[in-house]
Amino acid sequence: MNIFGIFILITLFGFLFSFKKFKQLMNKEEGEKKIKEISDLVHKGALSFLKTEYKTISVFAIIIAIILFFINYVLAICFLFGAFVSSLVAYVGMYVSTKANVRTVTSAKKSLKDALDTSFSSGLVTSIFIVSIGLIGIIILFSIFKDVNLLFGFGFGASLVALFLRVGGGVFTKAADVGADLVGKVEKGIPEDDPRNPAVIADNVGDNVGDVAGMGSDLLESYIQSIIAAMVLGFLAFGNLGLILPLFVCSVGVLASVFGSFFVNLKNQNIYSAINKGFYSAFLFMVFVLFFVVLSLNKIIYNSFFVFGPNSLFSLFFCVVLGLLSGIIISKYTLYVTSADKKPTRSIAESSKTGAATNILKGLSVGMFSTALPIIVVSISIIFSYSFGGHFGVALSSVGLLGILGIVLAADFYGPVVDNAQGLVEMGGLSKKIQERTERLDAVGNSTAAITKGFAIASAAFTSIALFISYIVVTNISTIDLINVNVIVSIFIGAMVPFVFCSFLIEAVESAAFKIIHEVRRQFKSIKGLMSKKQKPDYDACISICTNQALKGMLLPAIIAIVLPVLIALLLGPEAVGGFLAGAIGTGFVLAIFMANSGGAWDNSKKYIEQGNLGGKGSEAHKAAVVGDTVGDPFKDTCGPSLNILIKLMTIVALVFVPLLI
Amino acid sequence: MNIFGIFILITLFGFLFSFKKFKQLMNKEEGEKKIKEISDLVHKGALSFLKTEYKTISVFAIIIAIILFFINYVLAICFLFGAFVSSLVAYVGMYVSTKANVRTVTSAKKSLKDALDTSFSSGLVTSIFIVSIGLIGIIILFSIFKDVNLLFGFGFGASLVALFLRVGGGVFTKAADVGADLVGKVEKGIPEDDPRNPAVIADNVGDNVGDVAGMGSDLLESYIQSIIAAMVLGFLAFGNLGLILPLFVCSVGVLASVFGSFFVNLKNQNIYSAINKGFYSAFLFMVFVLFFVVLSLNKIIYNSFFVFGPNSLFSLFFCVVLGLLSGIIISKYTLYVTSADKKPTRSIAESSKTGAATNILKGLSVGMFSTALPIIVVSISIIFSYSFGGHFGVALSSVGLLGILGIVLAADFYGPVVDNAQGLVEMGGLSKKIQERTERLDAVGNSTAAITKGFAIASAAFTSIALFISYIVVTNISTIDLINVNVIVSIFIGAMVPFVFCSFLIEAVESAAFKIIHEVRRQFKSIKGLMSKKQKPDYDACISICTNQALKGMLLPAIIAIVLPVLIALLLGPEAVGGFLAGAIGTGFVLAIFMANSGGAWDNSKKYIEQGNLGGKGSEAHKAAVVGDTVGDPFKDTCGPSLNILIKLMTIVALVFVPLLI
Repeated sequence: MNIFGIFILITLFGFLFSFKKFKQLMNKEEGEKKIKEISDLVHKGALSFLKTEYKTISVFAIIIAIILFFINYVLAICFLFGAFVSSLVAYVGMYVSTKANVRTVTSAKKSLKDALDTSFSSGLVTSIFIVSIGLIGIIILFSIFKDVNLLFGFGFGASLVALFLRVGGGVFTKAADVGADLVGKVEKGIPEDDPRNPAVIADNVGDNVGDVAGMGSDLLESYIQSIIAAMVLGFLAFGNLGLILPLFVCSVGVLASVFGSFFVNLKNQNIYSAINKGFYSAFLFMVFVLFFVVLSLNKIIYNSFFVFGPNSLFSLFFCVVLGLLSGIIISKYTLYVTSADKKPTRSIAESSKTGAATNILKGLSVGMFSTALPIIVVSISIIFSYSFGGHFGVALSSVGLLGILGIVLAADFYGPVVDNAQGLVEMGGLSKKIQERTERLDAVGNSTAAITKGFAIASAAFTSIALFISYIVVTNISTIDLINVNVIVSIFIGAMVPFVFCSFLIEAVESAAFKIIHEVRRQFKSIKGLMSKKQKPDYDACISICTNQALKGMLLPAIIAIVLPVLIALLLGPEAVGGFLAGAIGTGFVLAIFMANSGGAWDNSKKYIEQGNLGGKGSEAHKAAVVGDTVGDPFKDTCGPSLNILIKLMTIVALVFVPLLI
Repeated sequence: MNIFGIFILITLFGFLFSFKKFKQLMNKEEGEKKIKEISDLVHKGALSFLKTEYKTISVFAIIIAIILFFINYVLAICFLFGAFVSSLVAYVGMYVSTKANVRTVTSAKKSLKDALDTSFSSGLVTSIFIVSIGLIGIIILFSIFKDVNLLFGFGFGASLVALFLRVGGGVFTKAADVGADLVGKVEKGIPEDDPRNPAVIADNVGDNVGDVAGMGSDLLESYIQSIIAAMVLGFLAFGNLGLILPLFVCSVGVLASVFGSFFVNLKNQNIYSAINKGFYSAFLFMVFVLFFVVLSLNKIIYNSFFVFGPNSLFSLFFCVVLGLLSGIIISKYTLYVTSADKKPTRSIAESSKTGAATNILKGLSVGMFSTALPIIVVSISIIFSYSFGGHFGVALSSVGLLGILGIVLAADFYGPVVDNAQGLVEMGGLSKKIQERTERLDAVGNSTAAITKGFAIASAAFTSIALFISYIVVTNISTIDLINVNVIVSIFIGAMVPFVFCSFLIEAVESAAFKIIHEVRRQFKSIKGLMSKKQKPDYDACISICTNQALKGMLLPAIIAIVLPVLIALLLGPEAVGGFLAGAIGTGFVLAIFMANSGGAWDNSKKYIEQGNLGGKGSEAHKAAVVGDTVGDPFKDTCGPSLNILIKLMTIVALVFVPLLI
């Protein structure tokens, strides 16, 4: 197939672009020694976290690979390759972003425009790398093994690593955050990013662990899984055309993201609108290119530009557009719910005036209500894409949503870089002017983070549905009937799992946070010259506590996700697994939106008060808002994101193992 | 059918028993004028709340009845009768319990034994009335109209009123509670049940509204619906035998409850064990009687005592026992999770030491984890009862669970009576000795409330499943296939609805509480002689605010529950309604357990600290625990209970309307 050559060329172009950006980044000045030293600590801490995680992940991965090997050696190879790619991607992301923070500080000395350029470019290095390697991985494996069904092994490997990184990262980042804040800021009264705080490096590492390693591996997984599901369903519906189309959409997406990146250019001092321009240019590029390709293909095949009807190229084009639009709407809505200048978050801030309890209740209520719109958008999109292109259409709209992943992820990776840069500026005590610049960059980072969170949840829902449909098709179950009592019961069990899963995660964060608090207090007590800056704290101790707790916390959730679908299949049969997945995906999706949005809204309602509203810092309202923010931390940074992976991982486990059990 | 005569005799016996207990109660002394005055205020407030609610409910009920009338006039009659019975039951319950509180105080002057006797007997008046009227209602309607399918109208009417009372009651009770506590206790520093507090009567009314009117109508609904669903499915599977069996099980249950009530007798000063003896005697009575009936029927029909095999009488007997056991296990587990002397609640108390945020997180985590066991118990029970008796078996185990409702409800109604009595003793400033007695009664009331809450949730789940199965059977949908995209989407929408529903409820409680806080503050300010007891507060103002807010708060949730299933049917078809219900029942059940258990555990972890542990009242831990308790209030008393009705009501709406739309 000649077209595969074109796809490979496009991914190679992606790698080149990513590499060029990387070289540009590394060529930038690192600046003062003092700041560089701290940045190096963060860099080393991040990589040491990954090393320790990878050891445990390897054990898991090898055990699963051995099991798979006895079933089908190709599946085992694909699985290991998927696990490797996901691990590699997280490593690259962490490496780049912890190199980019200090360079953003140096750029900020020149201008805001330069600083945005440096930080956003560093995001592009990893994000374009991710979409390129995801795409070429699929192409290579398919070219070698020729069986698209075996590619699910690739998705499974990526999914397993993603779960570990998301859960582990979620525990790490919140434990470090709480530990640093509670003892440093509250008990000792030193500023947020003070180098005297023993947990400050762990906190900075944590930002990267959660937002770079976690988010990167999460969306890489969605990307891979959606493409594979679409290829499987596409092949069944349209033969080779169905195989090629998803790859084609994503190839155009790679180009669209690169294209969009050129528009992220500070002109009128509005950082947010600059990044937004990048999004919309990529979106428009994708829509227009696909539109014209469809037009010309129609002309070639049917000798007429406009050919409509079910399963026509235009119908499939609309599926892609529906996915893209759904992603944008849900992302923007997430931003709306969690923005300090919008009603939902404001109402939480208002409720803080009457204390912590009303703040908590309002936050829960806002989060619960915010589940409605995303569910409705996803539902409408699925119903229409099904009517346009059948099951393949649904999978294709999932691919469409993820098409502009390259630019969306870049905006997400930008967040921890500027957050770290802002920390470095504070720790280094740089000038007000630079501080103001990094603060402005950081403020936008919160918005892009909210957008990506919405995007990640939407993509997880779409991907799970695409995988779920593939499950039904692949297992050849003709019907999964709700009148079957086993199916009903399994829906209930599926609905329960996300809650129990979150309970484990909250416990893990809590116990890790307690350990860190204890350690930070111990250091402040036993290291005499710490407060007077004569002695340095033992940063590594905090990092290794966070790492170990993260490891401990991720085992049980991972086992749940892998074992349960198989157990249900063995006890209640493959139909019941369908019910189980439907229950788990439905509740998991809703719970993820609820927790992510409540958490984000609590966070920003606190920030709103800290800006001087409703009494400002130190007021009773502020104290109440701090409670909400602390409750929201594991909601938005541990539970919400981990649920995304849970629903995808359980579905892919069912897809890989259940057909073998029948 | 001669057997119907026996059933009618048993229900008549139930009415007689209830009436005798009522007369005994009313013949007891009312005691001092001062206490009687306050009790009369509570009594009047309770009835005035009901009157106002009934006006709005009537409007709703009449509109629906008119719609039903044009479809089938029998359905409309059954519906109105159901609404009437549910309203009547709530009225009787409120009437009796607000007459019993003052009589419990007088009895407490004599002895603890007498006080338990008075309060528990008052519970029996209503509870035996409820099971008798539920049973005879079904028998009468069936005898007149001969079509069991039309009886769903009866269930629908009861369900609608139950929703209004549960939601309205939940809003009323929490608003009054928060208002009374926050301004009275916290701001003014007066004791909990001080007659100077303008919201104190509303608070006492609220206890009855939630636990008597709400719980009574909720469980009456479960009772009716389970029996009808079992009759419908039983008739299909076994003809007339299947019609009779559910009624027979319930008739034995009425006798069992009366039998059990004789064992609620204080011997060794342990109130809880006395009530427990009542439960277990009823349980054993029921199991033994049914066992021997099965034995003798087998002898008569097959000339052999022991005849096993699928669909044999023994199989069906096991279904009943499975239901009974599930109810007991889930109830006891609920008690375990929420008891101050058990690990889950203790761990929340421990977490209060580090502040409100950790208290909240721990409470959420405990509640989320506690969803696992009930779901597993229900699942196992359903799978086995299905294998024993098919779909009818599942419905029969729901009937079995509700068999001993008479005694369970009595224990629940006992709660607000002793709570009110305790309040009256405080307000009247009676002797320490009496106060100690009512306090001991009240402490047990928390345990019985926890048990009934578990029971109510379990019964709601069982009932919804029985109704859900009936839906599939009645609509003649041969399959509800998960490969159908409309079904998948509807599962998601169904999973979302309970969250949005709870969001509305939390908002309603919050806004009602704000209004009450405002009013109480206003009265303390404007009524000069209030604090010096020279002037009386305007109790009615608080009651009418609570009532109005309750009315306002219940409209939107009621409309959601009634309109959504119909809307889904119109837009996506009757199969999709099946998916919608499965999603809503699954998530609603899990969410209800989570919220009820978190709320209960928060409440008792605060009480545990107030007993002098972890620093006791006024400590930092206590302050944190108060936040948890306040968050937990709408969780356990508004959202949890209302979710029970939501899942039942939506299913019965689908059952009644969707077959007409096909």
